[in-house]
Amino acid sequence: RINSDRLWDSIMEMAKIGPGIAGGNNRQTVTDEDGEGRHLFKRWCEAAGLEMGLDEMGTMFARREGADPSLPPVYVGSHLDTQPTGGKYDGVLGVLGGLEIIRSLNDLGITTRHPIVVTNWTNEEGSRFAPAMMASGVFAGVLEQADVYQHTDKQGKKFGEELERIGWKGTEKVGDRKIHAFFELHIEQGPILEDEGIDIGVVTHGQGLKWLQVTLTGKEAHTGSTPMPKRRNAGLGMARVIELVHEIAMDYQPDAVGAVGHMEVFPNSRNIIAGRTVFTIDIRSPEKEVLDAMDGRIREGIDTICEALDIQYKVEQVGAFDPVTFDAGCVKAIRDAADRLGYSHRNIVSGAGHDACWINRVAPTAMVMCPCVDGLSHNEAEEITKEWAGAGADVLFHAVVETAGI
Amino acid sequence: RINSDRLWDSIMEMAKIGPGIAGGNNRQTVTDEDGEGRHLFKRWCEAAGLEMGLDEMGTMFARREGADPSLPPVYVGSHLDTQPTGGKYDGVLGVLGGLEIIRSLNDLGITTRHPIVVTNWTNEEGSRFAPAMMASGVFAGVLEQADVYQHTDKQGKKFGEELERIGWKGTEKVGDRKIHAFFELHIEQGPILEDEGIDIGVVTHGQGLKWLQVTLTGKEAHTGSTPMPKRRNAGLGMARVIELVHEIAMDYQPDAVGAVGHMEVFPNSRNIIAGRTVFTIDIRSPEKEVLDAMDGRIREGIDTICEALDIQYKVEQVGAFDPVTFDAGCVKAIRDAADRLGYSHRNIVSGAGHDACWINRVAPTAMVMCPCVDGLSHNEAEEITKEWAGAGADVLFHAVVETAGI
Ligand SMILES: NC(=O)NCCC(=O)O
Ligand SMILES: NC(=O)NCCC(=O)O
Repeated sequence: RINSDRLWDSIMEMAKIGPGIAGGNNRQTVTDEDGEGRHLFKRWCEAAGLEMGLDEMGTMFARREGADPSLPPVYVGSHLDTQPTGGKYDGVLGVLGGLEIIRSLNDLGITTRHPIVVTNWTNEEGSRFAPAMMASGVFAGVLEQADVYQHTDKQGKKFGEELERIGWKGTEKVGDRKIHAFFELHIEQGPILEDEGIDIGVVTHGQGLKWLQVTLTGKEAHTGSTPMPKRRNAGLGMARVIELVHEIAMDYQPDAVGAVGHMEVFPNSRNIIAGRTVFTIDIRSPEKEVLDAMDGRIREGIDTICEALDIQYKVEQVGAFDPVTFDAGCVKAIRDAADRLGYSHRNIVSGAGHDACWINRVAPTAMVMCPCVDGLSHNEAEEITKEWAGAGADVLFHAVVETAGI
Repeated sequence: RINSDRLWDSIMEMAKIGPGIAGGNNRQTVTDEDGEGRHLFKRWCEAAGLEMGLDEMGTMFARREGADPSLPPVYVGSHLDTQPTGGKYDGVLGVLGGLEIIRSLNDLGITTRHPIVVTNWTNEEGSRFAPAMMASGVFAGVLEQADVYQHTDKQGKKFGEELERIGWKGTEKVGDRKIHAFFELHIEQGPILEDEGIDIGVVTHGQGLKWLQVTLTGKEAHTGSTPMPKRRNAGLGMARVIELVHEIAMDYQPDAVGAVGHMEVFPNSRNIIAGRTVFTIDIRSPEKEVLDAMDGRIREGIDTICEALDIQYKVEQVGAFDPVTFDAGCVKAIRDAADRLGYSHRNIVSGAGHDACWINRVAPTAMVMCPCVDGLSHNEAEEITKEWAGAGADVLFHAVVETAGI
């Protein structure tokens, strides 16, 4: 078993970097705080005897040599970046859980046959720069590196330039690695495991997602002296699209979810009818057909709404992935580990996207989940217990070592 | 008649200060740009032989002595501050139209019996700091100076501190002036005069207004892994309130308008359900009963919406004025002037709030309006012609001089 005290202490140490305002974290991707978090992780890896690789997307690869260095490594990890108002565990548990495997192997003096590589994927959250899971997406060949370098945040800063600015743009070509298998430990971010009192989620599938960024263009005008029929209100248009997304998601739930979390209003003045709004629709489903049907209904609905309000629209897909079926062998390794260790477990579908969803396209992949309090995530109040974290890392440890061989 | 070329040149000169991004202006109240605009206006006033007064709200009072200095002055003016994406004429025409009266009197060598004071009221727009017509509201005794000094902008800066910072907080007690009459020239900001091809709006009434700032508090949570029934979505709540305001306004139009132009979303991330939204409802009507009925229905509706979504709400009134009936004598002076000068005219209700609405409570007051292209205002593309401006200033000139006596 791994050392859950040591794992917990490391999580708490990392949480000191980029503290939030309510007990969580604001360590958004390729900010100075992200750079600081990376330095700490690197120091820990070096202290554990690992050799650090860094690719052109800034993804960190900390390698522990195997008995047969020619064999492709088993990869394990997640991400250290957070939401603007994120929790201490989302992503961090998976990276430091991977590091804890190494530390435990060092304690036990075990050398695995395959090398093991602990990974910190860049920009998993996608909040500052769309899309989410950006670096793993480039690694898996589904996103274009040259393209995502140009993606901008709300201040207009470019991802590529920010990565360079913080000093974490490496020289290794992205995707140039052979992966024997990839394992990711993550908090569930949903309520099922806690509600059912189960220790371990064996993740068999992941929901698909679409992010549709909508720009509505109406006409800035005075809220007082512009007659109602003369208005071209981009704020009202946004409100109707938000309601539309909700209604469509309700039609398909529990097999779908949908919401708008990101909204910008121009010029955002109390007495000016909004002339322009920009917002992102987030829709998800484990069924590709459902996702496509929702997408179609939303686009149709936007057209109808905008025609009625005499406003123009543009819909851009700024993120997307199909539903994922994880590798049967890796899934079995996780289930077997949980059984062997005596943890209760159940199959589960990931509601969130994860780096594992992309890596699954280029290598056998699976995920372990542990419960989180009230299913709450993307909230500074995100919470888990040391025991839950320890159980998840134990299962990860056994699955990884089993796959890497001894 | 006044010199419309000179008036136009001054308007264009003022528009160079705080330029917008699309041909208009961003010279928001008590910013550095506002300070610069005030300096220019002061230089012009001094060149025209006026003596400048400045009160504790930063309102500027430029006095031309009368034949009988003991008589209360006739006041004329408007405001030099603009919306964040404002036009070149909203407010500016009224201040520089007042200055043009003085310049024309100087040209003609005429001394009026009553002194004349040209006025630039501070923070008419209310976009940076609520409420609108702040300084004239304090002058008229309907707003508390100590209270409005504490009002903050989105960055948390206080009005009183910003006024002091830009160096335009005077020492004169606010409201300590006897006003014989007040006249304000303004662009219509609505489409009626242009549509009907009429030169002059004789403003007989002004709409009443309420600004209700709403804060909705739900729960930040993951957009992907939070089941639909578990969501407490403050963004969806905002969308429903925006639609509610629109529906209620549509029920009462053309006797009412309503919209939400100001919205803030927290944490505003693509994959976080909004935990908090803050936005301002703007409702207006020329009928007090209609305004009160709308207010009641909106508050009831918010309660219902929030109960259904399991979110909390707070509604604060951050601005309000009752419908206004302007002084019959002043209105007649404007109508007579338009007749005398041969301009076509009609009675009109002001859709926007104006400093004149507050001053009307403490002195005989009326307004002159000139058309604006497409009724467009609070938009950088706001436009008028030199002829429209000249006609409005001519009428203002005659009404003011008639009231001041010669
Ligand atoms: N796990 C996680 O929160 N990832 C961010 C991408 C997503 O929104 O699902
Ligand atoms: N005239 C004008 O636009 N004033 C601002 C206050 C309002 O919103 O009516």
